[in-house]
Amino acid sequence: MVVVQKYGGSSVADKDKILNVAKKIKARIEKGDKVIVIVSAMGKTTDNLINLAKSISNKPHPREMDMLLTTGEQVSIALLSIALNELGVKAKSFNAFQLNILTTHEHTKARIKDINSSKILKELKKNAAIIIAGFQGITESGDLTTLGRGGSDTTAVAVAGKLNVPCEIYSDVDGIYTCDPRIIPNAKKISYITYDDILELSSLGAKVLHSRAVELAKKYNVKLYCASSFSNKEGTWVVNKIPEWLEQPVVTGATIEKNQIKITLSNLPKNETLIERVFKVLSEKNINIDMISMYSDEKYYHLSFSILDDLKKIIIDAIKEIDSSLNITYQGPFDKVSVVGVGMKSSPGVAARFFKTISKINAKPELVTTSEIKISVLVLKEFSQILLNALADEFSLKE
Amino acid sequence: MVVVQKYGGSSVADKDKILNVAKKIKARIEKGDKVIVIVSAMGKTTDNLINLAKSISNKPHPREMDMLLTTGEQVSIALLSIALNELGVKAKSFNAFQLNILTTHEHTKARIKDINSSKILKELKKNAAIIIAGFQGITESGDLTTLGRGGSDTTAVAVAGKLNVPCEIYSDVDGIYTCDPRIIPNAKKISYITYDDILELSSLGAKVLHSRAVELAKKYNVKLYCASSFSNKEGTWVVNKIPEWLEQPVVTGATIEKNQIKITLSNLPKNETLIERVFKVLSEKNINIDMISMYSDEKYYHLSFSILDDLKKIIIDAIKEIDSSLNITYQGPFDKVSVVGVGMKSSPGVAARFFKTISKINAKPELVTTSEIKISVLVLKEFSQILLNALADEFSLKE
Repeated sequence: MVVVQKYGGSSVADKDKILNVAKKIKARIEKGDKVIVIVSAMGKTTDNLINLAKSISNKPHPREMDMLLTTGEQVSIALLSIALNELGVKAKSFNAFQLNILTTHEHTKARIKDINSSKILKELKKNAAIIIAGFQGITESGDLTTLGRGGSDTTAVAVAGKLNVPCEIYSDVDGIYTCDPRIIPNAKKISYITYDDILELSSLGAKVLHSRAVELAKKYNVKLYCASSFSNKEGTWVVNKIPEWLEQPVVTGATIEKNQIKITLSNLPKNETLIERVFKVLSEKNINIDMISMYSDEKYYHLSFSILDDLKKIIIDAIKEIDSSLNITYQGPFDKVSVVGVGMKSSPGVAARFFKTISKINAKPELVTTSEIKISVLVLKEFSQILLNALADEFSLKE
Repeated sequence: MVVVQKYGGSSVADKDKILNVAKKIKARIEKGDKVIVIVSAMGKTTDNLINLAKSISNKPHPREMDMLLTTGEQVSIALLSIALNELGVKAKSFNAFQLNILTTHEHTKARIKDINSSKILKELKKNAAIIIAGFQGITESGDLTTLGRGGSDTTAVAVAGKLNVPCEIYSDVDGIYTCDPRIIPNAKKISYITYDDILELSSLGAKVLHSRAVELAKKYNVKLYCASSFSNKEGTWVVNKIPEWLEQPVVTGATIEKNQIKITLSNLPKNETLIERVFKVLSEKNINIDMISMYSDEKYYHLSFSILDDLKKIIIDAIKEIDSSLNITYQGPFDKVSVVGVGMKSSPGVAARFFKTISKINAKPELVTTSEIKISVLVLKEFSQILLNALADEFSLKE
């Protein structure tokens, strides 16, 4: 069987960790598999290179930035291949350009357009392991590109998708849990989770998997497996549908996102173009708005939305620019607590259980939003961990 | 005019030095030239990468070693290009593969076969500076290669030769001197030197120019100019023939090479195959023999040659293996003192003046060899600096 494995920066941070990864790959090959390995840059390499460039230029030329950053992955693939050959495994490393990992021209945030899978398959016949630099690409005109943060995950999923094989993502985290184990120490590890749930639970998966890679995996139906590169504990499968022999939980997980500010525009004249202009000015400044809630009475619209604390000044100034007479206020910081689960679709009453839990701990919901598979609430910071814990009890998220 | 400039590792060792190089290039462009820049890896990068690989494997896979080492130059070209663009100079960096710098397949010591000059010329029309990674190449099958030590000089000379333009080599040394200025503080700086003289004086030029690059420059008649990247002092031109308006000196320079051992095989039976076998076994062990002197009497051959001190055990063991009864002895360490100059060819009496100088300081010549443009002698270590100084006086090598 052919399998794609991806090892993140912390898994190859030094020579001992590289040798550890090489041993894991060797063990897998000895079981009869052929392994395509995608590697990130060692430890903090990418950050260090960015800082070096920024010490020379406030706004480094994006094409040259990609020329610089792609070296990080090239060092990792070479060292891992040296380690594998040292262990007697026939391995060969490749930069993205050597496998024609074609991308768009948007430097520092390019998107993969195609991969030359025939070259990979040809090299896989001659070698036990193929080591591919993650995060990199090449344009049709021969310029090096990078895929942005989480780019190595994207490379791994794209290669797996192209070859129609599963993709294993190894990092320093041993899987995805129902809640952050630093807050809920007996949070359950999730064996199977759907693409949709992990996208909604991105803060739980953030250290394990980049959202963009999950979206790509969903698009090409690539089975993902996330586990630790430092242990042999069972990890988490990310799939299209939970296997039928497993009971589908109502709620898959619960999260806290900190430092949310609630911005309120009250008594807005009933003029939809005004609301449109508010959101347009925010999107022009590349500000991601999270929760949005709007209600209208006879005379006015009243709009609330949540944003990250450090953005509040920019946002208020931007909105004042539209019309300085707008009645804008902010409150917070709050924490946002959410529960997520595709099981909610077929299981009525989750909202009722959610609000029952809020009222049981006497928290006051400041802002509530819901989707088909997610309910979120803003509460005062002192309530967030208590609420998370109560929700974990209510929805059986603990061991 | 188009000019090739090469900056060594010490010239781009940190961000301030990179900015300094960028300013020099900018100033040159403002004079109306277009500049093709070849850069080495920053400071000790290559050594650090080699040590990292050796911490993983005693004998790192050569293909993967090249994959690793080529990152050093890629970082330099990216940062230099970022610096130039920051200064408002339109610059673009290229790896060797992007310009089709085709090499042989011998990893870690490949040789350049061809360069795609049309791509360089095309990019030079659109940009003021083209930054090219030195030391790198690519094979016809798409594998990355490196050119061995001094490889960036080789890249620079090869590009200059292909485009038929001069090549300027910048380092932390401001030119080539008649003698090592650390020993002879008032040694003259040489304005013009021939390829042949610099090849014989390699120890004087070693910190400035790699012999392989000089050989290539000679082959393609590329005018070289060596100067400091940190000052504007006049440097040294390396050319085919000293310009006629300059007086050709008899002796161009004088050098000391330290720690030479004299190996003597005395009373060898008059059997040439034995001597052949001695040299064959040494060449099989990749040992470079320097001075060789042989004389024969009625019954025997007597052979002496010089080698570096740390090789003596390997050599004696190797020769004993041929025939354990061979009468082999060694003496030393000595220092080797040489004078070099193409002017010697047309100027008789240099040998006489050389030996007169030796006898004036009461040194005893242990081994002497001569070529058309070089005379060398082994003397006791305590005499070498005195002899160099006396020779510098005799042959007008001082200011």
